[in-house]
Amino acid sequence: MRRLVVVGGNAAGMSAASQARKRTGPGELSIVAFERGHFTSYSSCGIPYWIGGVVAERDALISRTPAEFAKMSIDARVRHEVTEIDLDRREVVARALDDGGREVREPFDDLVYAAGAVPAAPPWARTDATGVYGVQTLDDGAAVLRALDADPAPRRAVVVGGGYIGVELAEAMIQRGLAVTLIEKAAQPMSTVDPDMGARVADAVAGLGVDVRTGVGVDGLEVDGGRVRAVVTSDGPVEADIVVLGLGVRPNTALAEAAGLPLGPTGAVEVDLRMRVPGTDGIWAAGDCVQTVHRVTGRPVHVPLGTHANKQGRVAGINLGGGYATFPGVVGTAVTKVCDLEVARTGLTSAEATAAGYRFVTASIESTSRAGYFPGAKPMCVKLIAEKRTGLLLGAQIVGRTEAAKRIDGLAIAIWNRMTVEEMTALDLGYAPPYAPVWDPVVIAARKATDAVHAEN
Amino acid sequence: MRRLVVVGGNAAGMSAASQARKRTGPGELSIVAFERGHFTSYSSCGIPYWIGGVVAERDALISRTPAEFAKMSIDARVRHEVTEIDLDRREVVARALDDGGREVREPFDDLVYAAGAVPAAPPWARTDATGVYGVQTLDDGAAVLRALDADPAPRRAVVVGGGYIGVELAEAMIQRGLAVTLIEKAAQPMSTVDPDMGARVADAVAGLGVDVRTGVGVDGLEVDGGRVRAVVTSDGPVEADIVVLGLGVRPNTALAEAAGLPLGPTGAVEVDLRMRVPGTDGIWAAGDCVQTVHRVTGRPVHVPLGTHANKQGRVAGINLGGGYATFPGVVGTAVTKVCDLEVARTGLTSAEATAAGYRFVTASIESTSRAGYFPGAKPMCVKLIAEKRTGLLLGAQIVGRTEAAKRIDGLAIAIWNRMTVEEMTALDLGYAPPYAPVWDPVVIAARKATDAVHAEN
Repeated sequence: MRRLVVVGGNAAGMSAASQARKRTGPGELSIVAFERGHFTSYSSCGIPYWIGGVVAERDALISRTPAEFAKMSIDARVRHEVTEIDLDRREVVARALDDGGREVREPFDDLVYAAGAVPAAPPWARTDATGVYGVQTLDDGAAVLRALDADPAPRRAVVVGGGYIGVELAEAMIQRGLAVTLIEKAAQPMSTVDPDMGARVADAVAGLGVDVRTGVGVDGLEVDGGRVRAVVTSDGPVEADIVVLGLGVRPNTALAEAAGLPLGPTGAVEVDLRMRVPGTDGIWAAGDCVQTVHRVTGRPVHVPLGTHANKQGRVAGINLGGGYATFPGVVGTAVTKVCDLEVARTGLTSAEATAAGYRFVTASIESTSRAGYFPGAKPMCVKLIAEKRTGLLLGAQIVGRTEAAKRIDGLAIAIWNRMTVEEMTALDLGYAPPYAPVWDPVVIAARKATDAVHAEN
Repeated sequence: MRRLVVVGGNAAGMSAASQARKRTGPGELSIVAFERGHFTSYSSCGIPYWIGGVVAERDALISRTPAEFAKMSIDARVRHEVTEIDLDRREVVARALDDGGREVREPFDDLVYAAGAVPAAPPWARTDATGVYGVQTLDDGAAVLRALDADPAPRRAVVVGGGYIGVELAEAMIQRGLAVTLIEKAAQPMSTVDPDMGARVADAVAGLGVDVRTGVGVDGLEVDGGRVRAVVTSDGPVEADIVVLGLGVRPNTALAEAAGLPLGPTGAVEVDLRMRVPGTDGIWAAGDCVQTVHRVTGRPVHVPLGTHANKQGRVAGINLGGGYATFPGVVGTAVTKVCDLEVARTGLTSAEATAAGYRFVTASIESTSRAGYFPGAKPMCVKLIAEKRTGLLLGAQIVGRTEAAKRIDGLAIAIWNRMTVEEMTALDLGYAPPYAPVWDPVVIAARKATDAVHAEN
């Protein structure tokens, strides 16, 4: 019987396991998955909403438990930390954390490396102090909630880092009734969008009552008796009962490196179109630990998002199960919600386009989510970035109050298909007064971008 | 000075006039537009919402009045009915309806024919009886509202025809407090979607309290003293104080035909990519009176929708103003709202795909608008139609409760770019728990359709 071992029991790893199982009976393939944490297959993206109380139950975030996997003849072992991948002996070594660290050895024919990402370590110490949290795993989320429920309850939260997670957590802490300071080194939070769009996010976050401090660096933590007391910043100390780190993540490649698997220029594991690690036989990788291709620039990128992890895991599982599927790369789509603001992006930002060597024009338009006269119409800003001369759509960003975020999908598909903004002026998009103005905001933006391209030529 | 005359003062005609004016000063080009009704540039699609009371003011539907056009040096003459287009003398003959029918002759260098559409005439008589209405123009809408405000107020409305307009009007009449019967000859209302999707619409309409009678033909009207009393159907007479005809429209080509302009196989005026009438010099046409190309089948189609009319008018105006723009066809996108149901389609329906000669598979999936655990998540059904063997996406339909309709845009753009359902399984669509499950409904549907294509091969 062939043997599959999966390292990492979340989105990518368990999608791979499920797809492999779908294609091979339990008599053909045994599947063992090791997961360091307490949970399998959960929505990491849902953690801020759980902390904020929008989602009431932890279990709502879990899509499949080890017991459910067992019914699929998948042996998902939580609280097992993999310590070594031995490619010569083709076995995985793990420690059973709830069994005194007992060593387990599991041989494999196929291996899926899906170790995910780990929080980017800040360049300062004492992040192990009580009251300092990351929010990468469901266990992290549970720890934050325990801290919030402590007696006396924490009153002051400092969130370090103004990316998606930082902004979502700042909102969650406000929803929990804390006084919140958000510290971001850059001039704007949400550097994943252009500064003019980021400024709108900053306003929305400030509007929630968050003390937003941009252009402020963190020098370290003040710790007293093992417990954090303040965050020391270039702007002075900011007192904190609880500190949440949202500094981004890096691919978790330690085991892969030790095993001699190739890492790419992004520092993440290299994979081919079928999610196989190049130069290996039966070693697959997927999720936040791998790099992929940005379809606009053609360059490798590391984009740790649950939606990619699920797709990549599925592709790996189909292929190792004898099928055929590919993951042809990403176009950089991401959406988030900040209070009643919807923020979406796809393709390249202006900074990314510049870094890639493009010369480009931008066009921003203000429109509404519905026909202007229809009740509930809300403002929406669409910004397009188009290559000079060719008019190729390179990137798009949307900030709106409602019915805005998912409009990015059409733009993502336009970029995927290498459309020009001029061709996009003719797009046949859905029109009815409850859903769009007769000129859809996307088409209005394409018109303005087309004019900008012509004006530059 | 060059002279432009526009026949028809609504979406297409006035978009053309505006674009021409944008590119040429009042000293270079004079612009006269004739409109038979009382109003210019209004949202026909908004009329049902005005009748239903969702939109309070008629003027909210008007985007530009003749006075506003006058400020742009566009002479928009309402209540002027064009009676002849004389291509030899290059002049238009019109009657001033509010001036005793006085004849006006207006010479032109360029002409934009934008006469719109007229209600499809039923094969029965007495549609001129009091109490019988169409809802094609703002004047029609005003007439319906006058009838609803009459004393004694009408209590029973019969809507004939279960297409978009019929369904929207049935809802509007319910909102006005009338007892409503909707009569549709076909087995389902909304034959613009597949029967399985149409059945959901029928349920929603019935859920509003509308008496939906499908498979019922209309034989005529019962009229008493010039006033309608009942609609005579294959199912017996249905008493009515007010009858609204929603039987669709046909292109208004009478003047074009008389002038010798070419009509296509759809019965609408032929135009080239730049909206010029082939074989003519300086004669342009746009809007509900022209035919266009369906980008999936490559065949001519007549699709009278405001969104196309505006784009086509703009293209005509840009070209006659010395610029360059094209209207490369449609992919059949349409959306509508029925109570809290959102209904969307793009590409070909199963019936249209069959008629075009395609062999195809279909795949329908049930999913949710947001992550299943996120508050406000609502069910959504996505149906895809893909060509056998190639997997080319031919059509898509969505029915949902909220945040569903505009998801059709991504599918429309996928069809526009001739994507296969297999490639679509990898699409990089926006994911965050408030906006989508981690597997977007569109991607889940693409996966299922891909499996269906493989199963057939």
